[in-house]
Amino acid sequence: MAQAKNILFIMFDQLRWDYLSCYGHPHLDTPNIDKLASKGVRFDRAYIQAPICGASRMSTYTGRYVNSHGAGWNNIPLRVGEPTLGDHLRKQGMDCWLIGKTHMAADTEGMERLGIERGTQIGERVAQCGFDVFERDDGMRPEGPDGPYDPGGALTYNEYLRSKGYEGDNPWHDYANSGLDSDGNVLSGWFLKNNSLPANIREEDSETPYMTRRGMEFIENAQGPWCCHLSLIKPHWPYIVPEPYASMYGPQHFLPVVRTEEERDNAHPVLRAMMNGPVSKTFSRMEARDAMLGAYMGLIKQIDDQMGVLFDWLEETGRMKDTMIVLTSDHGDFLGDHWLGEKQFFFDNSTRVPLIVYDPSPEADATRGTVSDALVEQIDLVKTFYEVAGGKVDDIAHQVEGHSLMPILHGQATEQPRAVAICEYDYSATPLRNALNVDVADARAFMATSKRWKLIHFEGGFRPMLFDLEADPQELVDLGDSPDHAAIIAEMYEHLHAWFRRCDQRITKSRAALTQMGTGIQRRGVTIGVYSEDEANPELVTKYLGRKARPWQEVVAAQSGAAE
Amino acid sequence: MAQAKNILFIMFDQLRWDYLSCYGHPHLDTPNIDKLASKGVRFDRAYIQAPICGASRMSTYTGRYVNSHGAGWNNIPLRVGEPTLGDHLRKQGMDCWLIGKTHMAADTEGMERLGIERGTQIGERVAQCGFDVFERDDGMRPEGPDGPYDPGGALTYNEYLRSKGYEGDNPWHDYANSGLDSDGNVLSGWFLKNNSLPANIREEDSETPYMTRRGMEFIENAQGPWCCHLSLIKPHWPYIVPEPYASMYGPQHFLPVVRTEEERDNAHPVLRAMMNGPVSKTFSRMEARDAMLGAYMGLIKQIDDQMGVLFDWLEETGRMKDTMIVLTSDHGDFLGDHWLGEKQFFFDNSTRVPLIVYDPSPEADATRGTVSDALVEQIDLVKTFYEVAGGKVDDIAHQVEGHSLMPILHGQATEQPRAVAICEYDYSATPLRNALNVDVADARAFMATSKRWKLIHFEGGFRPMLFDLEADPQELVDLGDSPDHAAIIAEMYEHLHAWFRRCDQRITKSRAALTQMGTGIQRRGVTIGVYSEDEANPELVTKYLGRKARPWQEVVAAQSGAAE
Repeated sequence: MAQAKNILFIMFDQLRWDYLSCYGHPHLDTPNIDKLASKGVRFDRAYIQAPICGASRMSTYTGRYVNSHGAGWNNIPLRVGEPTLGDHLRKQGMDCWLIGKTHMAADTEGMERLGIERGTQIGERVAQCGFDVFERDDGMRPEGPDGPYDPGGALTYNEYLRSKGYEGDNPWHDYANSGLDSDGNVLSGWFLKNNSLPANIREEDSETPYMTRRGMEFIENAQGPWCCHLSLIKPHWPYIVPEPYASMYGPQHFLPVVRTEEERDNAHPVLRAMMNGPVSKTFSRMEARDAMLGAYMGLIKQIDDQMGVLFDWLEETGRMKDTMIVLTSDHGDFLGDHWLGEKQFFFDNSTRVPLIVYDPSPEADATRGTVSDALVEQIDLVKTFYEVAGGKVDDIAHQVEGHSLMPILHGQATEQPRAVAICEYDYSATPLRNALNVDVADARAFMATSKRWKLIHFEGGFRPMLFDLEADPQELVDLGDSPDHAAIIAEMYEHLHAWFRRCDQRITKSRAALTQMGTGIQRRGVTIGVYSEDEANPELVTKYLGRKARPWQEVVAAQSGAAE
Repeated sequence: MAQAKNILFIMFDQLRWDYLSCYGHPHLDTPNIDKLASKGVRFDRAYIQAPICGASRMSTYTGRYVNSHGAGWNNIPLRVGEPTLGDHLRKQGMDCWLIGKTHMAADTEGMERLGIERGTQIGERVAQCGFDVFERDDGMRPEGPDGPYDPGGALTYNEYLRSKGYEGDNPWHDYANSGLDSDGNVLSGWFLKNNSLPANIREEDSETPYMTRRGMEFIENAQGPWCCHLSLIKPHWPYIVPEPYASMYGPQHFLPVVRTEEERDNAHPVLRAMMNGPVSKTFSRMEARDAMLGAYMGLIKQIDDQMGVLFDWLEETGRMKDTMIVLTSDHGDFLGDHWLGEKQFFFDNSTRVPLIVYDPSPEADATRGTVSDALVEQIDLVKTFYEVAGGKVDDIAHQVEGHSLMPILHGQATEQPRAVAICEYDYSATPLRNALNVDVADARAFMATSKRWKLIHFEGGFRPMLFDLEADPQELVDLGDSPDHAAIIAEMYEHLHAWFRRCDQRITKSRAALTQMGTGIQRRGVTIGVYSEDEANPELVTKYLGRKARPWQEVVAAQSGAAE
């Protein structure tokens, strides 16, 4: 073992925290990921900062809350000038590369205003959320009547597929994400009823093995020190997986759906509107859940096998000795729990994610194989990585929120220095806002959770929600209008408001620079509130003493004389 | 009268709201400014957003709270990418020029990271807070043992003075801001005991007439439409003024100092630390106040005379017909009130400023000569100016806080849509932080004031302060620990926290764009939560229907055959 020199930062998309065997899934065996956990620390209370891909990732890649960086939803661009993980690591001499998905939307208006051009190194980094790009692939190429959702989506992967003989304009859809009937009709994976079919693709050509190989290609040729963000799309929809994974899991392996009639009947107005949305309606039908859940589990099993390939290769090539490995997800998936589909709310199924950190350093030996129940936020990773790169967290504390995980990884702490974890949900750009008739500025909600209590605050005049995570870990009983819990609600609001009041925009001066300013200014001649010379610090006012001048009348007379 | 075409935005520095005759000063007659008020609207409750030059101005020039832009103190740079007044006006075809002071500190680190170079048009605008610079002069050239406070300060003015025969390396100091004894010794205006001397300069060569002329030079040659920010340093310290103003005001004209023994004895810990600072100690001595207050008043009288010159010239040249004129200050001055000097706290003497808006448009005829007691913030100016330039405020509402004054100016409203005005005080870079032993992140305080109640919240664990502005307009009785006022304090905290929760960083998507996103996304093929083809909107899923593919085994076999 040696000090970690490089960082392999693996992120999956829409992977629920409880769908790995090391996190307790009884029927989904993930021995390779579990093995990584046995060599590192498995964090059991890791929260993402927004229950949607883009916003969650913008927080993770900047180390800043959504409320700080402003990119609160998919395709809301990250404003030009937000400092990123890549900016920080490169200052320490560590490269920062992307292989896969970020969901970054470039702030083209801001770039234009500042004269920053695509195609330049700086312009590309600004447009790519601070990463240098080995392969950008947000993992999807949906197509509608107005064209593709993402004009740049899956282009390289589609090229790869065509090079392997999968023809057509979008083999990502036709092969990797669809089944096939005996007449040669593509049965699209977009439709849940097709999700139990095997994807019509050779397993090694499907997305998870492809992108894992791309990660290995990068690492094989990378000069250190590097941070490699290997960012894989699955088990994100379309939920469909090739054989042998397509046939592995059936109803006998499914966790029961977690929901009650009572929670639906008494749902908070915002939650009710979500339950009444078409996506939730569909996922609440058992036939839909049963059609997709086997594929979802198969995709995770495939992920685990690919992680085995990757980790074995790292071991064989000696890289396990000097590479920190982080494995996590950008959010979870409701899978019909709480009468919801997708991820756009604050239940743990979405906001809590798997997070495993393997640090090869000897300092981490004391914690190998342990489980931490510290309240962790995914924005904690930026400072953690910055320390691996050799930086001191205090130097970036004015730009990066979150707290380094190093003290926990090295056995020096068991908790993170926070009372609550925060997650934010901006639904201003969604149909939910229309359904609730809420103003664009008010279509926002905030979760503050301790280990015991989860408060959800809504702008726009709604009452809060509250869950008791100890008595009700499945979050079925909303106590937000319980008079008996008024004191707890008030206490949780104190925490939430303390968070709102944090200092998050003073990013142009470090703590050290501010401290220095508080002592040094008087040496540059600003002499405020000094009555007379003899009361002043003589060293500081020498410039104002012993000077000579002429009466102004003399100056003016000489000047007008000179002018004549 | 015609529609306002151009904007003359005049700002003074450290001009107290109550030191103009139109605002009620009994001994300081300012007929020219009063005349402007008689032609426009005089706002009687206008608050700045920070009680310090730089931070206040960064808010005014961006239309954003300090908590939003982050530049909370002098010389904390405004982060690259903050949209400015200039950015907004230029989009509407209006130029935005600076003549005088901004106290802008460029974010050189951010500019370097983004590859934005000084000397380019974009780089200069970024470095100058969005202005094009006719003359930048922050109005001061202090010099200490470590050199000048502002290496670029007063350079052009010093050149001007030398061209007029005022010799030396710093005639700004030796002539414009000092007296002279009969032996030719410079008696520096930095020392308050010298403030009752006449400045040793011909009146027309002193700073206020000089910069007023520079403004007229700009206007004379400007092509419209333009916004001209004429930003004058006085009555800011050094408090010293040439004759005839030096002899105009004596103790018989001074307002009595406003302070009580009781407020000092019972002062809140942060306020007490301020009172105990050297500047406050000095200004609390009547000899010091008496030495400087005549000069302070004389500087204001000179300002009024120069405004008379300027306004008469605008009238004569026909410009009064199509120019909006705004006259305000960046903050006030305690002048010994509350046992304080300078401006760095939340009493009205500092946070409330004069604000007069003259709009030549016929729509404004109904309000000419009226006084508005609406709760106004200086950040309201950006949207006001944007409307003059022809823009619609909703288009910049995602980037600009504050509310246009137009409804009040045009008689359509009497109040601004806010419950409280906000002012922020970041003392992290000051000796006060050390004196109080507060962390850099916690050295911040926030004022929320309604017309009746002023709440002051401190980070760092201090109790709040509260003033009843109706019963106690001089703010002498702090009710922050009054049990009788617990409900009021709680109510004011509600307002403050609602403000903290505002949406201030989502600056890359307009309200209209977000609204559109909420309805349009499904047309690009993201088909989530649709069970079967027949349940989908057929228009939206056409791309996924009727497609053909081959079984993957056939693809692979063909490929391996081709490879052989």
